[in-house]
Amino acid sequence: MIITLTTDFGYKDYFVGSMKGVILGINPHAQVIDISHEVEPYNVTAAAYLIKASYLYFPKGTIHVVVVDPGVGSTRRSILVEKNGSYFVGPDNGVFSYIYQEAQKIRIVHLTSQEYFLNPTTQRVPGPTFQGRDIFAPVAAWLSKGIDPLKLGEQIQDPVKLPLAEPRWVNNGTLEGRIIYIDRFGNLITNITRTYFSAVSPPEADQGPITSGKVILKGKILALKGFYAEGKPGEPCVLMNSCGHLEVFINLGNAQQQFEASVGDSIMVRVKRSNA
Amino acid sequence: MIITLTTDFGYKDYFVGSMKGVILGINPHAQVIDISHEVEPYNVTAAAYLIKASYLYFPKGTIHVVVVDPGVGSTRRSILVEKNGSYFVGPDNGVFSYIYQEAQKIRIVHLTSQEYFLNPTTQRVPGPTFQGRDIFAPVAAWLSKGIDPLKLGEQIQDPVKLPLAEPRWVNNGTLEGRIIYIDRFGNLITNITRTYFSAVSPPEADQGPITSGKVILKGKILALKGFYAEGKPGEPCVLMNSCGHLEVFINLGNAQQQFEASVGDSIMVRVKRSNA
Amino acid sequence: MIITLTTDFGYKDYFVGSMKGVILGINPHAQVIDISHEVEPYNVTAAAYLIKASYLYFPKGTIHVVVVDPGVGSTRRSILVEKNGSYFVGPDNGVFSYIYQEAQKIRIVHLTSQEYFLNPTTQRVPGPTFQGRDIFAPVAAWLSKGIDPLKLGEQIQDPVKLPLAEPRWVNNGTLEGRIIYIDRFGNLITNITRTYFSAVSPPEADQGPITSGKVILKGKILALKGFYAEGKPGEPCVLMNSCGHLEVFINLGNAQQQFEASVGDSIMVRVKRSNA
Repeated sequence: MIITLTTDFGYKDYFVGSMKGVILGINPHAQVIDISHEVEPYNVTAAAYLIKASYLYFPKGTIHVVVVDPGVGSTRRSILVEKNGSYFVGPDNGVFSYIYQEAQKIRIVHLTSQEYFLNPTTQRVPGPTFQGRDIFAPVAAWLSKGIDPLKLGEQIQDPVKLPLAEPRWVNNGTLEGRIIYIDRFGNLITNITRTYFSAVSPPEADQGPITSGKVILKGKILALKGFYAEGKPGEPCVLMNSCGHLEVFINLGNAQQQFEASVGDSIMVRVKRSNA
Repeated sequence: MIITLTTDFGYKDYFVGSMKGVILGINPHAQVIDISHEVEPYNVTAAAYLIKASYLYFPKGTIHVVVVDPGVGSTRRSILVEKNGSYFVGPDNGVFSYIYQEAQKIRIVHLTSQEYFLNPTTQRVPGPTFQGRDIFAPVAAWLSKGIDPLKLGEQIQDPVKLPLAEPRWVNNGTLEGRIIYIDRFGNLITNITRTYFSAVSPPEADQGPITSGKVILKGKILALKGFYAEGKPGEPCVLMNSCGHLEVFINLGNAQQQFEASVGDSIMVRVKRSNA
Repeated sequence: MIITLTTDFGYKDYFVGSMKGVILGINPHAQVIDISHEVEPYNVTAAAYLIKASYLYFPKGTIHVVVVDPGVGSTRRSILVEKNGSYFVGPDNGVFSYIYQEAQKIRIVHLTSQEYFLNPTTQRVPGPTFQGRDIFAPVAAWLSKGIDPLKLGEQIQDPVKLPLAEPRWVNNGTLEGRIIYIDRFGNLITNITRTYFSAVSPPEADQGPITSGKVILKGKILALKGFYAEGKPGEPCVLMNSCGHLEVFINLGNAQQQFEASVGDSIMVRVKRSNA
């Protein structure tokens, strides 16, 4: 059984290692896979995008532990989310907002059964500062051994949701999106998704389907491409990325630096319609 | 069987990968778990803290390989340490000092049996510059296959120990500690431990047990908290961390930057006694 | 069966995690081992050195996936290389140049059989921008399940090769090499290998075997050492490293910084001959 880890714990400390030790102490047969531990500290939105972008590529039954948790130790709840055979374990702070968004059938359990938390000894004292090790890791390990999720706590219906920035129609011909994530290569991932144009009705749908568009970032028109190597070196481009999001890039360059871009920056799509 | 790795080799080179290859070539069933490879280069003290902070969270029988080794190739010994069913493999340069400190019953073996080192071929030539791959990885792999530790070399009684900074009583009411580690979040971990107050007799113990205290760093009084989210943003705070060490933090901030703190910096605890 | 990963994807994004998910979805028994994901973005030469330096330390049958791929999505081919029981999967952009160089018997397959690529679903749409996940990961996973390499595509004989910088004899007594890689410690790895002096005939071989030499970097004579700790602090030194390459180092220091060195910089070896 696979357990993935996504945290802002970084790679220099002992945090991730001790989570793995706790998991393997409970289930020696678990396969623990790192998704990322370099989420920007406390950036719940970035973690939400990462888990959305990767969980579909893991087999059914995989348990995804996400710990980006500025409120650790406070009254925020610890939860388990179950959706189409995938499991998610972490704090109830909105980090699973994208999971809820896409969900048809979903089950959320508030983790309260302390018998599935870290088993304390004289030298191993669980505390309120490291729930990744003391709550989420052991719960994931028990889950990977097949325990019934309902033994871990009570079902809830009101998980915390992030106010995820949705693209909005500024007018009939202009869609405004936002940069939601910037990757290692400086590529700018936006909240405008492949399914967006078909799923969202523009203000006046009878003006016909969208046939072409211009994408504009900070006053600059971006060239539309199918893959990175199509861009000329230095040329600001845009493509539909491997997770179905519109993404700004510069082939062999760094769009973040060239545009001095940040998460939250606005991006415009001007569309033409067949009968406009 | 689990083998953990803690090194200053970083993540950009091939060093860690080839250690794992050597281990799996000897024992295909070993589970190799990274604790950290971002120990500051040559910082033996930081590695000593990391392995102390994590080994208790791994199941019995786990083998911990630690390679922070500025003296590689010189006359410093290679050793195996066995303690309460946990194993430690690495250079005899003090990196296991915390392990000795807490130990009741311990066994240390000087690794001299070359038949358990890397098996050379025409193209794989072991040498004096990479003992992580050529000595520690293969020894750990053989150990994980159940070989008797005493076949790996001869027992010794005089391992190298770091002069670990102990807190000291400046006077009856003032304990001076030191920062021993700074984590990714800029939290400052000190050498003042949970068990310290009970274990160390203050100069005049008949003055009664400590009932409260003030913690002072660089002239600033720190607020005492139970978990991170209790701190107001920007407020310098202190808590007993998840490994039982006093730790300075700023909620959603960076104490290292705000205090311009370094490892070795002094921290003061002023205590009050019930009958003083 | 072991599958190793070497990429320039970094550790902050979801790229590596989703490759592992795809692999384990196809072969739950695969052991996925990271060699490095911190290859400098788009630096094919650095990746070529890393895989050369590590693959010999993995057991026979290991599958090495290397994805440093500035041309992803373009017409560059995807290939599988088989050599002495080791397998290599990645783009045909020269990243396996060192593998070809040392090879006696080798087989190269152009990966064209789409039935072994990522299996698309409504939500998982393979595309031209992430072939690490959509082609190389699934092909490696099928290979680890024992599929015949020839089912994956057709054999080719003309793989792309990097113009690997070879050392050259400037005159009978002077060999000029180049820095080809700089590691985390600032050590400068050159293209002058252990086997070089015996393998390459100097211009006038009848002048006798080389008995000693001076190594010079940027006008400075380097001290010849057997291991790092032999160097005095601050002293520029050179040794034959653990992969059989001449390597410039400064004990407990950083040669890259002290020499302001870059990949491609020239290094000179002045040799003396027994009968010159």
